[in-house]
This record gives sequence, C-alpha cells and structure tokens, in this order.
Amino acid sequence: MTAAVYDVLGMGNAMVDVIAHAQESRLDELGIVKGAMHLIDEDRAVEIYAGMGPGIEMSGGSAGNTMAGIASLGGRGAFIGKVRDDQLGDVFAHDLRSIGVSFEVPRATSGPATGRCLILVSPDAQRTMNTYLGAGRGLSPEDIDPGYVASASVVYVEGYLWDTDAAKAAVLKAFEAAHAAGRLTSLTLSDPFCVDRFRGEFRDLVTNHLDIVFANEAEIMSLYEVETFEAAVEHARREGKVMVLTRSEKGSVVVRGDETYSVEAEPVHRVVDTTGAGDLYASGFLYGFTRGMPLGECARLGGVAAAEVISHVGARPGVLLSTLV
Amino acid sequence: MTAAVYDVLGMGNAMVDVIAHAQESRLDELGIVKGAMHLIDEDRAVEIYAGMGPGIEMSGGSAGNTMAGIASLGGRGAFIGKVRDDQLGDVFAHDLRSIGVSFEVPRATSGPATGRCLILVSPDAQRTMNTYLGAGRGLSPEDIDPGYVASASVVYVEGYLWDTDAAKAAVLKAFEAAHAAGRLTSLTLSDPFCVDRFRGEFRDLVTNHLDIVFANEAEIMSLYEVETFEAAVEHARREGKVMVLTRSEKGSVVVRGDETYSVEAEPVHRVVDTTGAGDLYASGFLYGFTRGMPLGECARLGGVAAAEVISHVGARPGVLLSTLV
Repeated sequence: MTAAVYDVLGMGNAMVDVIAHAQESRLDELGIVKGAMHLIDEDRAVEIYAGMGPGIEMSGGSAGNTMAGIASLGGRGAFIGKVRDDQLGDVFAHDLRSIGVSFEVPRATSGPATGRCLILVSPDAQRTMNTYLGAGRGLSPEDIDPGYVASASVVYVEGYLWDTDAAKAAVLKAFEAAHAAGRLTSLTLSDPFCVDRFRGEFRDLVTNHLDIVFANEAEIMSLYEVETFEAAVEHARREGKVMVLTRSEKGSVVVRGDETYSVEAEPVHRVVDTTGAGDLYASGFLYGFTRGMPLGECARLGGVAAAEVISHVGARPGVLLSTLV
Repeated sequence: MTAAVYDVLGMGNAMVDVIAHAQESRLDELGIVKGAMHLIDEDRAVEIYAGMGPGIEMSGGSAGNTMAGIASLGGRGAFIGKVRDDQLGDVFAHDLRSIGVSFEVPRATSGPATGRCLILVSPDAQRTMNTYLGAGRGLSPEDIDPGYVASASVVYVEGYLWDTDAAKAAVLKAFEAAHAAGRLTSLTLSDPFCVDRFRGEFRDLVTNHLDIVFANEAEIMSLYEVETFEAAVEHARREGKVMVLTRSEKGSVVVRGDETYSVEAEPVHRVVDTTGAGDLYASGFLYGFTRGMPLGECARLGGVAAAEVISHVGARPGVLLSTLV
C-alpha cells in the first residue's frame, strides 16, 4: 500500500449556507420544524428566503465543513461534491481551496444553481436547516476517480447523500475503491429523519461497508429503533466497528466491541450557533485517527473542534484549529 | 410640503462584502495599503480573492450599510444603487428588503456582475477594502425618479459615487430633486483618498449643495488641506452647515456655525472589525435628525450604532439597533 496523499477524502452535498437569526415564531409562520434538516425544492427555498431576515453567506455542507476542519487542524483533505459554474459555486470552491483542500470535481455548466442551505438560528442557539440541493443532486459515479479515492487514508461520507440514487451509487463506488486499496471507510448518519428514511440501507452499510460510524444520540437510537442511548450502545458494540457517538453537552462515547472511551464535552463560554457541531467533531476525530492517536484522544480532539464552532455563527472554524489542540 | 414617506433615501455603490481575516504579511504580499479603500478591476479582484482565506459574504456598500442601520433602528429607508440579475444581486436585494428598506432600481441584465468588496480584516481589527464596482458602475441619472427622492426627508450619498461620471450626474439630479421638494441633502466624504481625488468638487458640494456633511478626521483635514483637526473644525464652522465629524475612539464633534456638540465614544468591550463604523454612525445620526432630536443626541445615537457594528465581523448590525437606544 502506497502512502496516502490525503488524510481524509470527504464526500457530500456541496452548498453555501445562508444564515439568519430568527425568533421561534418565525419558524412557526414558515411551518418549519425546529432543529432538523428539511429537504426543500426551489419554490420553497424562494418562499423561506423571502421570509428570512438579512443573512450571511458562508460555504457549508456537512462533509465540506468537516474537510475545512481537517485543513484547519493541519490535516490534508480532499472533497468530492457538485456545484454549478455560478457565483455561489465560486465561493464554495474558493473557500475549500484557499485552505488547501483539494476540490477537483468538474462544475455543472447547466441545470440547477449551486445548492443552498437556509439556516435559521433560534435565540437558544439551535439551528434549523432548509436544504435546496440544487446542483448537488448531479453528483454521480462519473465524479468518482478510484485512484483519487485510494489516495486518502479514510473516505468520509455524509448520510445526507442517501437522498439521491446517483449519489448513493457514487458513494458505493468510492467505498469499493477505498477498500480495494486497503483504505478505511466512514459515514455520519447525519440526521434522525435521514436515518428514518434509510434505516435498512444504513444498517447494511454499518455492518457490511463501514469501518467508522459517526452518530448522535437521536440518530443511533433511531438506527437500532431503541428507546435509550444505553440500548443503542449495546447494539453498536456488536458491530465490532469504531462507533463514534456524540451527545452534545454530555460529551461523546466511542465503542469498538467491548472497548469504551468516554470523553466529556469541552467547556464553551457561550453557545451561539450549534450549526456544524457534528461536522467539526468528525474533523477532530478523524484528524487524530489518521495520525494513529488512541480513540479517547481522537474523541477529545473532536470535542475541541466542536466547541470552537458552536461558539460563533457559522459552521466552519472561526480560528485556526491547529492553535487550539 | 407633503409628509415624507421615508426618513432617509441612501445612494451608493451596491455591493456584497467578502470578508476574511488576514495577517498584515498577507496584505504586503498582495501589495495592498492597509486601512484604505482601493478601487480594483476584475483581474485584480480575481487575484486578491485567490490570495484570501475562506470568507463570509454579507451585503455591504457604505450607504447600503447606513440604510440597514436606519431600518434596524426603526426608521424608514430607501436605497438607490445598481446590481445585476445574479446570485449576489439577489443577496443584496433580499437583505435590504427583508428589513423593510425600499429598493426598486431595475437590475442590470447584462454587463459586469454585482459588485464585490474584498475586505481583509487585520488582527488589530483594522479593515482594508478592495472594491470591484461591477454592475454598480451602471448607476446613472435614469435610475433617479425625482418623485421618489422627494418622498424622503433626507437624501444621503456616499462620496465613493464620485468615481464614475454617470453616478455623479445621478447624485446631482437627486440633490436637485430633494431641494426642489424642500428636503435636505447629505454626503459622507467616505475615504481620505476619495477626498484627494475630488477635493475641488467636494468643496463645491459642501458649500453649494449640501445641508449635512459626514467626515472623519483624515477626511475633513484632507478636504481643507490643513494639518490639525482643530484647524479643520474652524474651516467647517464657516460652511454654516451641519458638519458631523467622527474621531474613532475619541468620539465625535458636530458643528454648525458657532454651535458645537461633542460626544464621547461609546464603550466597546472588544473591537473586532471596524468595517462599517462610519456608515452606522451616519445611521444613528440621521435616525435622530429626522426625528427632530437635538444634534448632541443625534451624535450619541451615531456612537451607539457604530459601537455595535465594530464589536463583530461585518458592516451591518448584528442585533436590532432599536433594542440598544
């Protein structure tokens, strides 16, 4: 096996976040359920945007955020996702490349615009995401170069990609390329509603295709359809994989068979916007993991990166994370 | 004279800010003089953007920021400026309209893209602006509806508009419409280099076309070509106009003939990014002025609005200013 060029290759929906503060009454008016990720079409995107206050735009996307975190920690990253040749596509590409993340997928030259995630941040720092996938829906197996995937130690995929068949096929192609080259595969379950939609497929992925799985409490309980976190952990142990379970202010637990590594949450002076907490936790964990650190230390790094991102508006690091660890 | 529909109608270069933190060494590498506003062409914009780190995008433009502040304070505002029918043009229009600012200028359907201001924020919170006017250059007298201008108590113009002849003609048309309707005119000198470029014309405007003038220390000293702020104040008194002079951490001074109103700067816990300080000062001042408040109280409101905007990244209010005054 040749040395890896990249620590982590991320795959996900490429999109730009549009972030605005919103009272909960505004969520009610717009008919949006707080806290979750909602897939929306273009008409609904126009409607919600019209009902939002002034926004700030920042590159986003779950796996894109994770790769920005990897780079911010000093790691070597690559990203696969689809944008269009428009202004927001320029922004997305610039923001990854300017921090040294490889992003080589050809842009779409026709069809829907670059995807947007309309994020409403409530006064309690909770975020509600409304995702218009746009050009992101165009991701397909043609965008996967097996040699490129094989050049990364770990391929990391967001479960959100399961919403389109072509992206799903692209992910499976990437997983095959990774394993054929002796590399590792990982997935975040992304969102409890996403797990609801694809429970059977996600269960199969965890058992048969994945080496490292990221999930929060709601997601792992939904995956195994159990009522308590403890019951979910017992199911997770039986997978024999590295199961990374995040618990917000209760920290995180990593299990691998009988092994257990629990880490407390990093203290945060004031939680401003929880967008990106899980994404950046994955950055810290994978940064440590690809450097051969013990699982408990990987979890600690995840917590440090997550704590930074929830202390300000936006889902990407506000400072160089390498200065914090 | 009929009652005004708007408190203030702002005119300026419509643009979206792209904001990134940058060490001073990066400014040197890019050959940029710190602290000022540099007009750049598209090639230079591409070059500087390529050398910038990850950015956040927010609607900006000096007079646009002022109008956002007016609305945030609870005032009624309108804006005249030019964008294209592209994604950043959508962002600019959305962000004004979503807070209730009227923005009715037809968008350009061909030609350069919506303007961008590439802002590098140094560790000392100082901002250096690199402005690609783009579609903003298309502002012309045709965009001025005299009846619309006459429906505002005050028309407020950024001196930056003096960089194109068509915009200059548009401003003079607006000033005429305002005075014909018994309304007031105002201008900010915008930038010391801008004053250098147009000193003669700005002197003529102050003496013959304006009722209210905004300037910082460097700008007013440059206007009158004097070495001290005190000497500039003496020149300013002789204009007999409302001369609003801002002095950063030393507060502000308003003079009108022999009258003098000095106000200390509002305390700021930590200055993060000085972008928009002058723009938001004008918001607070004009909000008070159009409500008939005494000049000292107008200056105090200017200081409150400026203090808010320098306490976070970005040149528009981060909270509803009406909750602060």
